[in-house]
Parts: sequence; structure tokens; C-alpha cells
Amino acid sequence: MTPATQMGSVLTAFGDRIETVLDSLLPASGSAERLYQAMRYALFGGGKYLRPYIVDASADIFEVPQVASLRTGAAVEMIHAYSLVHDDLPAMDDDDLRRGRATCHRAFDEATAILAGDALLTLAFQTLAAPETHSDASVRADLVASLADSAGGRGMVGGQMIDLESEHVQVGAAAIRDIMRLKTGALLTFSAMAGAILGQADARARESLRNFGSDLGLAFQMKDDLLDVEGDEESLGKRVAKDAEAGKATLVSLLGVEGARREARRMSDAALAHLDCFGTRADRLRAVADFVLARDH
Amino acid sequence: MTPATQMGSVLTAFGDRIETVLDSLLPASGSAERLYQAMRYALFGGGKYLRPYIVDASADIFEVPQVASLRTGAAVEMIHAYSLVHDDLPAMDDDDLRRGRATCHRAFDEATAILAGDALLTLAFQTLAAPETHSDASVRADLVASLADSAGGRGMVGGQMIDLESEHVQVGAAAIRDIMRLKTGALLTFSAMAGAILGQADARARESLRNFGSDLGLAFQMKDDLLDVEGDEESLGKRVAKDAEAGKATLVSLLGVEGARREARRMSDAALAHLDCFGTRADRLRAVADFVLARDH
Repeated sequence: MTPATQMGSVLTAFGDRIETVLDSLLPASGSAERLYQAMRYALFGGGKYLRPYIVDASADIFEVPQVASLRTGAAVEMIHAYSLVHDDLPAMDDDDLRRGRATCHRAFDEATAILAGDALLTLAFQTLAAPETHSDASVRADLVASLADSAGGRGMVGGQMIDLESEHVQVGAAAIRDIMRLKTGALLTFSAMAGAILGQADARARESLRNFGSDLGLAFQMKDDLLDVEGDEESLGKRVAKDAEAGKATLVSLLGVEGARREARRMSDAALAHLDCFGTRADRLRAVADFVLARDH
Repeated sequence: MTPATQMGSVLTAFGDRIETVLDSLLPASGSAERLYQAMRYALFGGGKYLRPYIVDASADIFEVPQVASLRTGAAVEMIHAYSLVHDDLPAMDDDDLRRGRATCHRAFDEATAILAGDALLTLAFQTLAAPETHSDASVRADLVASLADSAGGRGMVGGQMIDLESEHVQVGAAAIRDIMRLKTGALLTFSAMAGAILGQADARARESLRNFGSDLGLAFQMKDDLLDVEGDEESLGKRVAKDAEAGKATLVSLLGVEGARREARRMSDAALAHLDCFGTRADRLRAVADFVLARDH
């Protein structure tokens, strides 16, 4: 098996575990039933659960109990899912297709999609703050503050804003890297760091994982841009060539396909170097970095 | 002076203090400048800051340091502001006017309004989780969990969802009360309870404040519905007769104006009764209940 197919089956097995946790955090019934249907539609849409997996692999370094890492991973996935729902809206990227299915506002309606996103975002913080996530309240408050920092106006949401503004505007490689760092990188960085927060590790370990996540995020986004150029719609489950269509500059359009491939490899290698201090305990995270480059969707 | 004008000037003075805190939490600059402009536009729009005032008045009962109550109040105001921005969107209530000014998506654009709402929602939790809000991390985690519970799918967002679904559908008084309890009541309930959380008060005090907030929320919403029928657009700063236009049943349409007035008074009296156990320390909260009924906007 190639590293990508090997990791594929690891992620599938992990997916079952994280879905059980997500399911328990999101009972289907309730008075706002349609809202919860839309939230579940957004969450259980055949995603790879890569972010929760990174949380779990990072927590493994510090032998954190799995209930803590799975709940934290579930919260990150809620943030990821909400961001996709809102980004797909007509006023934003206006996408009809996501993971091979109708986007949330297409399957339901715009108002429901906006509210489902809002409720997922809120539930993420509720999940982290609950005593079940960690016995030490300072860890829970730290998780909330760090995730909010990564997901908010100075992180993911800020990246989406700058990205929207950059359409049909001449932007250079530095600006593109800034957008990548915020829009995709911030949440991957939190995911990598989360293990150190949960494990109450020292500042050096936390910093190493932060740097790993940050470089991995760049490699991940570059691979995404490469797949947008090279991938086919069927295996990706979403529209391709979106960037060119939107007149959006990417590192692929600036560096060419070969240049972008080299750059993605370089960032992945940089990410791996930050794991040296953890020895074999970080092998699961190393496999993630390999997978990010090798994947075809 | 009438209680309403007296309270009006108290709220104006308080508004200056809460705006200073909000301003410090939302520096205008940053790479996503347009996003922060929209967030500030939504926050500093001439709101009454009633929710932060309730937090502060409730915290006063337990002699909580004001930095804690103001930061907590600021977080609640961020949630309130985000909910208005998203509710005003074309896909939701489609409003052009809010507090006498263009709504956020009208002043900016839809994508910016969606993202500004998302960023405000996220910043609310970041603010509560930060060590500056309270020295005890368990209090901060409790604030996050309680606010998320009030604001999310089983609270405010759920209420908005049910409210949207109830348009052009025959609903009874019980269903309308449920919507009011969630859509408006949940955040007012958290505001009233927040003092007990910050003051680490016993379960009885917390329950009394929860009940006060819940009944106050019903009185508040009934007054809002009465103003929608009786108020004029100029002093309200928003469209009137929206409910009738949307084919939305309210307690006013079910009970008549006089019946709704009596009901609002009854709920306000019920709210006040929950404050008896606090003696004169709850006088500021009592004034809020009087103001809610007497206000003309």
C-alpha cells in the first residue's frame, strides 16, 4: 500500500470513532429539528476528519486520555464544518457541490444554513468548556481561548475576508501565503497544538507543535491548490478550476505546477523537522504530513 | 423624571463604560481591516447595551469586580450584535434599517456581514475564556458553557430557527411563548445569571436570577411586539408592523393590545418576585424590569 492509501484506511477507522462522539454531542431531535438536521448534514458529509485526527495524534504524544482528544477534535470539526457551510453560501463562494453532495444551503435553504453554521460554531465552544473535556478548568479555558483565536477575525475568518477581497486583485506570493496561513493554516495549527494544551506540556513542546501545524497548513493548502488544477471533479467531490474561474491568484498560478509541488514538499519537510524533539511518539503526526502531500482528494 | 427617562440616562452613562471595554477588545486595525470595521459598525450602532447592564447589575449583587462584569457584558453584547447582523440578512428577515442606520450587510455587503457576525460570535467566547475576565478558570469555563448554551441551537439560534419556520403557519400562544423564551429570553437569562456565576454564588441565587431573566425576557419580547404595533418608525429606528407583514403571529395578535399589556405587566411582576431574596442589593435589576415595560424604543 502507498502511504496515502494506508493513511486513508487509518482515517476511515478513526472517522467511525469521531462520528460516535459527534453523534452524542448532536442528538437529532429537539424543538428546532430542522436546524439539527442541517448541522448533522454539514458534519456527517463524508469529510476526512483530518483535523480531529491531528488533535488525537498530537494528544497521543502526551498520553492524553482519548475522551479529551476526541471531544476536542469534535469541536475543531464543528468549526471546520461551519466554515464550509458559510463559505459555500451564495454571498460568499456560491458553491452548489461539496464532497459530492449538495451544499448545506442547497439541501436546506440559506437561512437554515446560516443558522446551522452559527449553532455549530457555538456548540464547538460549549463542547470544549464542558467538564467532560478535561478535569482541569484552566485547560478548558485555554482550549476555548486558543481555538477562538485561531478561528476568529485574526485567524480563519480573517483569512476568508482577505481571500474574498483578493479576488480580481493583483496579489503577490507574500499576500497569498498570509491568506493560506490564516484561512487554512490557523485551524490546522490549533489542531496540532491542542495535544500540548490537553497534555499541559511545556512552552517548547507547544511551540514545536504550533510550528508543525503552521507549516503543515501551508503544505496542505498548496496541495489543495494543486488538486484544483490537476484533480478531477469526481474524486474531489467539488468543482475544480474554481480559483482560475474566480480570477484568484494562487501559488500554483505564480510558481507553476512544478514550482508549487517543490514548495509543498519543502513546507512538508519543514513541518516534519519540528517533530524531531518528540522522537517516535510523533510518528502518527509524521504520517499525516506524508498523507497531506500524497492524497488525491 | 419618569422611570424610563431616569433609566435612560443611567444606560447612557453605562454605555460609555461598556464601549470603552468593547473598543479595547476590538482594535480597528489589522490585516482584515474591512472585517473589523463591520464588527465595530455592528457593535457601536446606538444600542441600549441593556444586556451588559443586566450583567453588571447582577454582578453587583455579589460585589464582583467591575472588570469581570464589563468583560462578560461585552461578550454578551457581541453575541447580541452578531445575532442582529445575521437576522437582518436577506435570507433571514431581510431588513435594511436597524437603529436608524443601514443594516450591516447594507452598509458593507452580505459576505462581510456574515463574516463579521462569525467573528463577533467567536470573539465573545475568546473574551470570556481570557484570564483577564476572572482569576478562577472554572468560572471562565462556566461562563463559556452557559453563554454557549443560551446562544446556541437549544437557545437563541434555535429560537430564530423556529421563528422563521412559524411564518405563515398557524401557531398558538404556547408555541409563541417557546419562541420568545429562546429567541430573546435565553440571552437575557444568561445576562441575569452571569452575576451569580462571576460571584460563585450558591445554586439558589443562580436559580433565582435565572428565573428573573427568563420572566424579564418574556416581558421584554411582549413589549417589543407591542412597540411593533404601536411604536413609530422614527423613535424605534427600524421598520414597524414587521410581524403583521410577515404573517407572523405574536401574543399581541392573539391577546389583543390590552391583553398583551396585562400579560407583559404580569411577567414583569413575576420577574420582580424572584429578586426578593436579594433585598436592596437587587435594586438596579428592579429598575431594569420597570424600564423594560416603560420604554418607547
